[in-house]
Order: sequence, then structure tokens, then C-alpha cells
Amino acid sequence: MSSTKLFGNLQVVNIGLESFIEPFEKKGIPHTHMEWRPSLDVSADAKAAIFKNKAKIDAANAEAIARVQRGRPMLVGMGQAIDVIPGMKKNMILHAGPPITWERMCGPMKGAVIGALIYEGIAKDQTEAEVLAAGGKIEFSPCHEHQSVGPMAGIVSASMPVFIVKNSEFGNLTYSTQNEGLGKVLRYGAFSTEVIERLKWMEKTLYPTLKKAIESKKDGIDLKSIILQALHMGDEVHNRNRAGTSLLYRAIAPEIVNVAPDKETALAVLNFINGNDHFFLNLSMAASKAILDPARNIEGSSLVVVMARNGTDFGIQLAGTGSAWFTGKAPLVDALYFPGFSAADANPDIGDSAITETAGLGGFAMAAAFAIVQFVGGNADTALNYSKQMYEITLSESPQFQIPSLNFRGTPTGIDVTKVIEKNILPVINTGVAHKDPGVGQVGAGVLSAPTEPFQKAYEDLAKRFK
Amino acid sequence: MSSTKLFGNLQVVNIGLESFIEPFEKKGIPHTHMEWRPSLDVSADAKAAIFKNKAKIDAANAEAIARVQRGRPMLVGMGQAIDVIPGMKKNMILHAGPPITWERMCGPMKGAVIGALIYEGIAKDQTEAEVLAAGGKIEFSPCHEHQSVGPMAGIVSASMPVFIVKNSEFGNLTYSTQNEGLGKVLRYGAFSTEVIERLKWMEKTLYPTLKKAIESKKDGIDLKSIILQALHMGDEVHNRNRAGTSLLYRAIAPEIVNVAPDKETALAVLNFINGNDHFFLNLSMAASKAILDPARNIEGSSLVVVMARNGTDFGIQLAGTGSAWFTGKAPLVDALYFPGFSAADANPDIGDSAITETAGLGGFAMAAAFAIVQFVGGNADTALNYSKQMYEITLSESPQFQIPSLNFRGTPTGIDVTKVIEKNILPVINTGVAHKDPGVGQVGAGVLSAPTEPFQKAYEDLAKRFK
Repeated sequence: MSSTKLFGNLQVVNIGLESFIEPFEKKGIPHTHMEWRPSLDVSADAKAAIFKNKAKIDAANAEAIARVQRGRPMLVGMGQAIDVIPGMKKNMILHAGPPITWERMCGPMKGAVIGALIYEGIAKDQTEAEVLAAGGKIEFSPCHEHQSVGPMAGIVSASMPVFIVKNSEFGNLTYSTQNEGLGKVLRYGAFSTEVIERLKWMEKTLYPTLKKAIESKKDGIDLKSIILQALHMGDEVHNRNRAGTSLLYRAIAPEIVNVAPDKETALAVLNFINGNDHFFLNLSMAASKAILDPARNIEGSSLVVVMARNGTDFGIQLAGTGSAWFTGKAPLVDALYFPGFSAADANPDIGDSAITETAGLGGFAMAAAFAIVQFVGGNADTALNYSKQMYEITLSESPQFQIPSLNFRGTPTGIDVTKVIEKNILPVINTGVAHKDPGVGQVGAGVLSAPTEPFQKAYEDLAKRFK
Repeated sequence: MSSTKLFGNLQVVNIGLESFIEPFEKKGIPHTHMEWRPSLDVSADAKAAIFKNKAKIDAANAEAIARVQRGRPMLVGMGQAIDVIPGMKKNMILHAGPPITWERMCGPMKGAVIGALIYEGIAKDQTEAEVLAAGGKIEFSPCHEHQSVGPMAGIVSASMPVFIVKNSEFGNLTYSTQNEGLGKVLRYGAFSTEVIERLKWMEKTLYPTLKKAIESKKDGIDLKSIILQALHMGDEVHNRNRAGTSLLYRAIAPEIVNVAPDKETALAVLNFINGNDHFFLNLSMAASKAILDPARNIEGSSLVVVMARNGTDFGIQLAGTGSAWFTGKAPLVDALYFPGFSAADANPDIGDSAITETAGLGGFAMAAAFAIVQFVGGNADTALNYSKQMYEITLSESPQFQIPSLNFRGTPTGIDVTKVIEKNILPVINTGVAHKDPGVGQVGAGVLSAPTEPFQKAYEDLAKRFK
């Protein structure tokens, strides 16, 4: 109060660096802070081209976002990768993120590749697998180039059972594996006997029953409906999937009981799903991709249709730049570590799960999922602020996916690379953190900002396409 | 801006009536509003006695609230009312709220009594049931006087199966029926053949399987754990129980499959629970009562241990006033009505479900359940404000039940009748609204403030007990 008197009617408006307002804050002087940062560094030519073609970009984005908003992902079936995933081959291994060679793969991804080769019976042990993988006999390809997504290492090999998700508005299909649960699991690069045996059980017992159960639902299972309910129940369907898993469980349990060959199998399948609150994650990812894929290949659109990480590189794709990847170094995550682990153990950011943020979920919907801050850090205000800030770089608000705490405002949907550049606000991603060594598993969870480089490159490339 | 200039540096502090600040608000003049109302009308003698015995009351309340906080309600079994509920008789019918005669019962409660008499085979039709009920052959007694709670009409008759909830910290037991679902149901006073047949199915098919399933869980099912998770998932476990029902379903589905006599029964039981998002309500109510009952009969305590309505009267009980009921007229609910219904159709407030608010849940935890405003009206801010205001009249904050949007602050727990009187703030209750005629069912849902009279009477009575 005394400071206010001292400074009389001094009014302060601060633009830009927040640190400038601290002295006024401390003295209790009224002030208004306006967030502003210089735009991300891009070439003058690119800026000029984007500026000149703004009308064209806006029109292309309107079409792109309209397609995203109309998407209706339905879980319609299951199959083994080799039988259903386009372009899948016996000696092919799909992985998370942008393209990468064996040599450049991070620890957990290498571990998961080794596990997959043992699981497929192509290699009998780690040494054999490493020799094979390094020897050019195994073809590596990103999940995203096969209408697929995978969490963490994101490894998909030929025999692995996958969910089939259909966007019923457009007919496009996407695929993802069954979530293995926590602890020592392939997606974190573990490949011990226990891991391989679980994968075999998932192929021989879980998959046949789940496939029949899903396929006995005539119209499939409406994943959009589950996701929008889950957002009202504290999930953001990336790092928190307890509600989504619960609703899926309720939707499918009677069918599981009905189609299982015997009671023991029914119980084993029910208990497996019930034992893993992340079970729904792989479906929210496949649903997100199914929603985004129809927006691909729209000339001039600056919409981000993929954000994905392979643990070494962070890559994005745009609606207006075809199949090109724009990559940068995968960042380290600002994480809450599990007891016994620290930042020194962490692998850089990994996994296709950022497809949820790309679709306006995950970190973008964090204000719907306050409870997640107990897992990724921060408090309720942090969660609110993450979501609010994402409206700055998105094209629209979801008409279906809502954030209750923001009075049911639609989630910020459709990242616009031009806004990212101009406002210098990077997408936030909620994520799990893998140990950098294969086989250790998850060591924490946290929130990260996407790196700048992929967005700068994407912007330049989009700009060049305007003749 | 011009007004501000006109009034120069005028600063306004308003205490009390909000309407006084409107002119300043309209003119854009800075103002601070401090909520204040005159205390509720009570006798000078009572005020003096309460003031004089404040230390004694505080000590009693400290003991009472400590017991409430320690409570750990476990679902441990089921039985038929006549076999398990203390004091239950063949010709007895338990009802919601404080004691009431047949003549004074509201439409839906009369309807439910008629239904129960037909269900029990005591009467063959409505006429016979009404003659019997009016003729003094049927004994009516409040659920609360038999360690029981029932939603809406809250009717429990001898053959009805009930859940058994045990507070494992204190050993006390509570009971509640199985929730019938929505539409034409006994608790809303419906007694058509369809209603009676469902009740019979619930007794003959649902109950035996559910009982075995629950009893096959060695330590029972931890209701406190389900409720605290449900609060992180958008439930307040009174009017919104989707998460609670989902978590219960996940907890019990494998046992149902395991113990059901055949697959058809297992499926029927699973589908019945899955078809009713209110299934958990009766358990959250029994859990709330199990938590509160150990705080009964603590001399000098002003803690409210029961709020309950019979559709005619609203009654409360205090920890410090034994088995005395303090009643007032049951109020009408400020409701959102279902299509085709209006306030003219509404019965006054009814049901034992306000036991959830009494335990710091329901309306008190509304800020945990933003999605409920779509059902009861208001927006996210309304929900926040209801919860925040309840801290004013409660003794403590729950160490386990949290409100994520308030940065995981514990729910306002333990209504103190002296605070209600002094601050003139009445407990808020989320509730469903019954049609005033028997058999129509639910016509809406909304939020109400408890009436003042029961709290004034309770305060006077507590005061008198200090010699």
C-alpha cells in the first residue's frame, strides 16, 4: 500500500520479458503484462512468401481443419501387422518418429528392435539380433509411413497384433499395437524373456479374444465418444488414460465374456486390461492419427499433421508439404522422476504419442486433466496455462472435445506452423520418459516444449512451395 | 473509463448486500465486495450458551471430525434387509428422511410404499396397499434409524437385498439397496408391473451373483479409494457417479464372471451395472453414512451427522444431540428440468442422498465435477464457488478426498451448525428432482440450499444441553 502511495498513479504496461515486471510486482505497483516474444528465426524470403500467400494458406487451412473436426474414429477390428498394415513386410520393423538408421537409434529403440527380432524368431538372442539389425537385412520404417502409430520406441513387427481404427467420415484406417502395461516392456526397450513371453501371450490369448469381442460390435466402438467422455473425467488421453481405459473396459467386457473360449481366458483378458490404466493410450493415438490423416496433402496448408519422436530426432509433417519430414534434435523432458532415477538416466523424447497433442489432446487438453500434474509435475494453474497458451498456435477449437474447467471450451485443435513461428510458442507435450539404456523402462514423466528446428524447416519448405 | 475519470480516485468497499455494488460495477468504478450477512435468527440464550461453551464445543468437534477423517468404508457383503438390517421387521418399511406418517408422505414416497407392499406380496394392488398403509398395519421408520440410507423415496422392505458397508476403522456397518437405474423406478414412486419385475430380477438374479462376487473379495472393496479416485475423474458421487460406477465395475467384473452360475447371468449382471451410471450412488451414500456414524453421540459436538429429506420435511441430526431430529419444510429445488417438465411438476426435495454432502462430497465437492453443471445447471465458476463457500461452514478439509481444480485442496468436510447459524450460509446439495405424482419418475436435477429451520432448531437444542 505504501509503495502505491509513493508512486502515486503510476501505471505500468510491460510487453515481452516477464522479468521486467518483477520490481513492480514486488512493490505492489499496478501493472499489466503483455506476453510478446520475437518470432522464431526464419528467412526473409520465406516470411515474404507466407505473407503474400496468406489468403491461400487460410483457405487451405480452413479445409484442413474442417476435415479434422469432422473425423470420427471407430475401433473396428484387429489383425496381425503383416496381414493388415499397408507396406508391411516380414523383415520390416516399424518404429516411432521420423526415419532413422540402426546406427543412430537410441538405447530403448535398439532394445525394442532386439526384442522384436527375438519375438519374431528371426534372431535367437541379443548378439544375433544386433548383427542382423546392423547388417542391412532388416528394413526400418516409421510407423507414420504405414498409417500406424506406436508409443515410446513404437516398434511393430510382422506378427504383432494391431488394432484397426477407421475414420468413418473418410474411410481411412490407422493401426496401433496393444499396450503392454508398465514395468519391463518392449516399448521402453526391454527384451528379457518375461517381455517376450508377455508379447506371445498377447498374440496367442489376448488378441484372438479381443479381436472377436471388437468385431462382435456391429458398428465398432466409438473412440471419439470415449475420448470426449474421458476429457470430462480427468483424462487428457496421453499420459492419463484411466477414464478412457475404464470406459473401454465397460464397453467391451460383456463381449469379452461372450466370445472368450472359456472362463479362464475371459478372466485373464479382463484382468490384463483392468491392470493397466494406459491400455487406452494406443487407441487414443490411433484415433488421433485417424482424425488427422484426411488433412494430409492439402496444398498450401500450414497445419501440422504429425509430431513424432524416435528418441534421437523430433520430426513433424505438414498438411501442405506431402510426405516430407522436418526434424530437429529430440529434447530432454522436464520430468518428475520415479524414485531412484534422475535426469542423468533419461533418454531424449521418444514416441509417436505426440500425435495426441497434434490432434488437440494430451498436453493441449491438460486443463481437463488436473490429476495429471501429480504425474508430470506442476499444479492446477500450470495445467490451465498450458491449455490456454495452446489456443495461440492452433487454428480452431474442437466442437466435441471439451475442457470442463474452461467452461467446456473446445480443446485447442490444429497446430498452425505459421503461428508457431510468428508467436514463438512451441507445442507442449505430456510424455513418459524412458531410461536411456534398453530394458530399464520408464523413469519418469513430464512436460516438454517441442524443439524449434522442425517448425522452422517446415515453414521454409512450405514457403518455397508457393511459386 | 470516463466514469472512472469522473469519480477520480474513488474507491468503494461494499460489505453485505451484493446489489449495493451494482451501480459501481456498471460505471466501472473499482470496488471490493465483502460477503457478509446477518447471522440466522436464534435466541439470545442459545447464543450465549454456545459462546460460553465454545471451548467444550471445539474439543468435541475435534474428536468428531477426527473420527470422520479416519473412516474407511469397505463394501464387505450383501444380504436381504430382514436378515441384516438392525430392527428390520416383516411389516416394516424404511423410508428416506426424518420420521413421517403415511398421511403426510408426498406422492413419490406413497407410490414407492405401494410398490414395496406389492413387491413383498403383502398387497396385491394399489388399493389394497393404500388401505393397509393407512390402517396402521405397516410400521414406517427412517432408514437412518436402521444404519441405512436410500436415495429419493429411499424405501427398503424386508426382502430387498442390500449392500453391507463396514467402516473398518470403527467396525460400524451401514446398508443401502441396489440402484435400479433411471426411468420408471421405485425410488421415484413408480410401482407398475415393470418396476416390480425389475425388483424381483434384482433380488433373484442380480443380488445372488453380486453378493458372491463381493464376498469373494477377501478384504472387501475399498469404497474410500474408489471415491477419492472418482473425485479425480469428474464425479462428486452424488449426482454424478460415472467414474465411481466405472471403477466399481472394473473392480468387480472379473469376480462376477467367476461366480455367476452361467455366462448369461454374468452378462446380464454386467450389462445391468454398465447400463446405469448411477449404480455407484447407493454405495457412495452408504460409505458416507459409514464415515459419519462413528461421530454420533459426542457430547457438545455441533457437527451435522445427518441431512435427509422425506419429500415433505428436511431433517438433520447432530453429533451432540443424540437421536433427535430437527426438521423444516423440504424446499423446492432450483432445477434444470427434462424436456416436457417444469417447476410445477416438481416434488419438494427428497432422499437420504444429502448424506454425501454431510460427508463433504456431493455439492460440497462440486468443483471436482465440472461436467455436472450440464445436468444441474450453472458453469464451471458456479461449481467452483459452491465448493469454496462450503469451506466457510465446515470444520475441516478431507485429507483424502481432493478437489483437483482447487490444487487438490481437501473437500470441505464436517458441517458445523454453529458456523451455519453465525455465517448464515446453508449447505448446498446437488440433487435429482422427482415428479410430485407417484410413478412418473425424475423430472430434473439441480442445486438447493438446505432450509434454515432445522439448523436453527438444532442450534437451540444443542445450546440447551449445556447446563
